[in-house]
Amino acid sequence: MGWQRQAQGESIQGLVEDALARFEGAPVVVHGAGRTDAGVHALGQVASAAVTCAHPVDAIGRGLNAQLPADIRLLSVVDAPPDFHARFSARSKTYRYQLRAEGVGDPFTRAFTWQMPEAVDVEAMQSAAALLVGTHDFAAFQSVGTETRSTVRTIFQSELRHCAGCAGSAHSMTYEVRGDGFLRHMVRAIVGTLVEIGRGWRDARSMTQLLDGGRRAQAGATAPPHGLFLVSVDYD
Amino acid sequence: MGWQRQAQGESIQGLVEDALARFEGAPVVVHGAGRTDAGVHALGQVASAAVTCAHPVDAIGRGLNAQLPADIRLLSVVDAPPDFHARFSARSKTYRYQLRAEGVGDPFTRAFTWQMPEAVDVEAMQSAAALLVGTHDFAAFQSVGTETRSTVRTIFQSELRHCAGCAGSAHSMTYEVRGDGFLRHMVRAIVGTLVEIGRGWRDARSMTQLLDGGRRAQAGATAPPHGLFLVSVDYD
Repeated sequence: MGWQRQAQGESIQGLVEDALARFEGAPVVVHGAGRTDAGVHALGQVASAAVTCAHPVDAIGRGLNAQLPADIRLLSVVDAPPDFHARFSARSKTYRYQLRAEGVGDPFTRAFTWQMPEAVDVEAMQSAAALLVGTHDFAAFQSVGTETRSTVRTIFQSELRHCAGCAGSAHSMTYEVRGDGFLRHMVRAIVGTLVEIGRGWRDARSMTQLLDGGRRAQAGATAPPHGLFLVSVDYD
Repeated sequence: MGWQRQAQGESIQGLVEDALARFEGAPVVVHGAGRTDAGVHALGQVASAAVTCAHPVDAIGRGLNAQLPADIRLLSVVDAPPDFHARFSARSKTYRYQLRAEGVGDPFTRAFTWQMPEAVDVEAMQSAAALLVGTHDFAAFQSVGTETRSTVRTIFQSELRHCAGCAGSAHSMTYEVRGDGFLRHMVRAIVGTLVEIGRGWRDARSMTQLLDGGRRAQAGATAPPHGLFLVSVDYD
């Protein structure tokens, strides 16, 4: 399930809000730093809420975890200044995408990894990934039909790591990207484009043109959600 | 699902035998080195079968993987001497059990880890685990109602590792045991006993008495299957 409360069906936001409302005795809005889509995982999501109840934060954490399904866990609950907002106060977010290319699929990681039977050119993907660092217009990597004030974002880190040394995981890759903000489906569109570069369908340097306000249709297909993790959110 | 073919329901043995029979054009019996129970995982199971079909081994591997569910993967298929038998030719087997104690549960590893809310005395568990090395009568660690010629087995390695250095996994433990053979539910009974030692319910030295042909009721409860992995099988 995704983060954001939906008109129908469960959401992480909805489940956390409902559990917290039982403590507060009134409806509570919980703001998440990253609105992860259904199928996307979160290791370090941050969420904020304004509550008046006097319970100690540890008791709120234990009480909420007891109510939430085992797939959702609050790792810690802390007091924050009144003007803190998980999303608007965030300075940067880090996402990770797990890939595996070539060879027999791995049953133990397939729930969290995009496993592809084909071989890919890892070096071409690595050089294309490095081109993303800096301030660019990411319009080509945003889902069509989304409205945002600006499609310009700053990427601080963009790196594809190849786990060549690990026994039995010669084809495992991890893409990690940290930026001041991300457009809808942006990381998955970047990964889809990197994979098309790895497959030789497009040149690594084509990334430079896409970063100059290209259209969505010019970039690669959106990678599947299940390889993506929201790793951490940084604040001042 | 477990390894061994059952009168009712699916088994890994049954699925592999059925897939291989389509290549062979006749029923085939596949012998597994370790008969993992339902809920137990296998990273390095070894199985053998006698076939007459002339397909190259690579083609058999690809063909079987295409037919098997994604949770079951043949990592490689190789030719073996006619007298090779996955179970009877095995010199040793290595099992691993993943545990996590204290703190909030981890949604990402809970399918493969026994997660316990309580704190445990890791050092006591480590010293008890070390006592298992050598040749002992493991009758106390065998499921009741099982018939075997002998309950004496030799353990070459028995070690509890504590992942203290890893960020966010201060309470993760891995128990690894290598022996010339294992009785039914033996590893899970050992782990259950180690956990009772870790909880302070029994003394670490009580392991010595259990290893001298104790009764099943004297050892700890059987640990749940989902933390257990058959890691590898060794041959001459």
